[in-house]
Amino acid sequence: MLHWLRFRHKEAVGFGTLEEDRIKVFEGDMFGGAKSTGVTVGLEEVEILIPCVPGKMLALWNNFHALAEKLGMDTPPEPLYWVKTDGCYLGHGENILKPTSYDGKVVFEGELGIVIGSICSGVNEDQAPDYIFGYTCINDVTAVEIVNRDETFPQWTRAKSFDTFGVMGPVIATGLDPEKLVVQTFLTKPGTTEVQERQNYPVSDMVFSPKAIVSKISQDVTLFPGDVICCGTSIGVGSMRPGTKIEVNIDGIGTLSNFYEEN
Amino acid sequence: MLHWLRFRHKEAVGFGTLEEDRIKVFEGDMFGGAKSTGVTVGLEEVEILIPCVPGKMLALWNNFHALAEKLGMDTPPEPLYWVKTDGCYLGHGENILKPTSYDGKVVFEGELGIVIGSICSGVNEDQAPDYIFGYTCINDVTAVEIVNRDETFPQWTRAKSFDTFGVMGPVIATGLDPEKLVVQTFLTKPGTTEVQERQNYPVSDMVFSPKAIVSKISQDVTLFPGDVICCGTSIGVGSMRPGTKIEVNIDGIGTLSNFYEEN
Repeated sequence: MLHWLRFRHKEAVGFGTLEEDRIKVFEGDMFGGAKSTGVTVGLEEVEILIPCVPGKMLALWNNFHALAEKLGMDTPPEPLYWVKTDGCYLGHGENILKPTSYDGKVVFEGELGIVIGSICSGVNEDQAPDYIFGYTCINDVTAVEIVNRDETFPQWTRAKSFDTFGVMGPVIATGLDPEKLVVQTFLTKPGTTEVQERQNYPVSDMVFSPKAIVSKISQDVTLFPGDVICCGTSIGVGSMRPGTKIEVNIDGIGTLSNFYEEN
Repeated sequence: MLHWLRFRHKEAVGFGTLEEDRIKVFEGDMFGGAKSTGVTVGLEEVEILIPCVPGKMLALWNNFHALAEKLGMDTPPEPLYWVKTDGCYLGHGENILKPTSYDGKVVFEGELGIVIGSICSGVNEDQAPDYIFGYTCINDVTAVEIVNRDETFPQWTRAKSFDTFGVMGPVIATGLDPEKLVVQTFLTKPGTTEVQERQNYPVSDMVFSPKAIVSKISQDVTLFPGDVICCGTSIGVGSMRPGTKIEVNIDGIGTLSNFYEEN
């Protein structure tokens, strides 16, 4: 199992694998033919960036049995997804910013993210794992009151794509069995130190598993290395106010930690 | 007024400006500091590519008074948009492909496309034109029966993002007044030579003008050079079957011509 990450060190952007508190620096293409440079840097010397730069970030709605049951919804016959646009990507440790053009409720959604490793089109479920590079933690931040405020057109893309709303990281973990993973989200209210667990759900409760998602979406659109698919969230979503610390933890990947702040 | 385009010539990708039937080749960044190389190539020697590589392609719904009236819809109080994902971008002269995973109706939608020229966040309508690099022709191809086939979640992104469904080009025209433009779509049925005009509508009928669109969207998300916003379509949308030739013409920009074919 490897933990890949991107970082900024002395003004330069690099990438490598995390081994305890040091980064083994690589060069080339993370998704094909990356070579160790023999150099290491200390984790405390770098600024962590988004672990890859997605060409697209797709995200699923209604993909957990527990949440569908709680909300009294049927589970869908096919993955239902929208897109989070490129300006919203945010790495570990950076601040999620309150929109200036929206004053409603903003919620966190802790999720598992699939990172595609090679060009993928029309693959079946058995083949799909070969096209998955690894997994990362996602906070699919949402301006939730925008989604249904127009009666004629649900604004999923817009509600999910405000700058800083596509939080991912801290690393991409390879060699994991996703079915065994558990997503936890922890919230620390402004001015307090008490860490509250808000989400704790197993990936095995998904309606469409990661390999099913990749297979089904690849029938419609070509997926490219670095593309990210957010697998949807389950119960426990809640709102944040400025000063809130929000952490998405998946054992085997790590903890994605960010503050929500005024813009 | 300049007509920028990208092309492939002898295996290499280049860009430049079109002057009658020759391309004046530039180097550097189309959106800032491009320099003439002094070289020209004949248009007939190159393969035309998408005129820029968008970081994101946003697209509006219900943005024309005439179409809203025809469909008995109110016009929206704010731009309603989704995203067409990166795998769907297609240039002039390439084939739009019938999806293999969908057997329903596929429609053309001729549109004006805005191309962003510089990083744009929170700009007002008066400032917005400074951030618009130019305009292109769009065919916003849609697997229309997917949009509403799930009762709980309209699948705009998916219906619009099949590979080859984001058609743009042939050029990006600068220095145009968009309010004076007219979008025409012409269809030639398989096995015939009769060119039928199917759409002919003025950009001035937009609910949100290009500068209003850029201003409003920039309040939510940062727009980057090369991002494209498809301004929505008006009346006359129709379906295609394999062998159909579909052309989107905007005088001042040019004609975007493609065939719709079996995959």
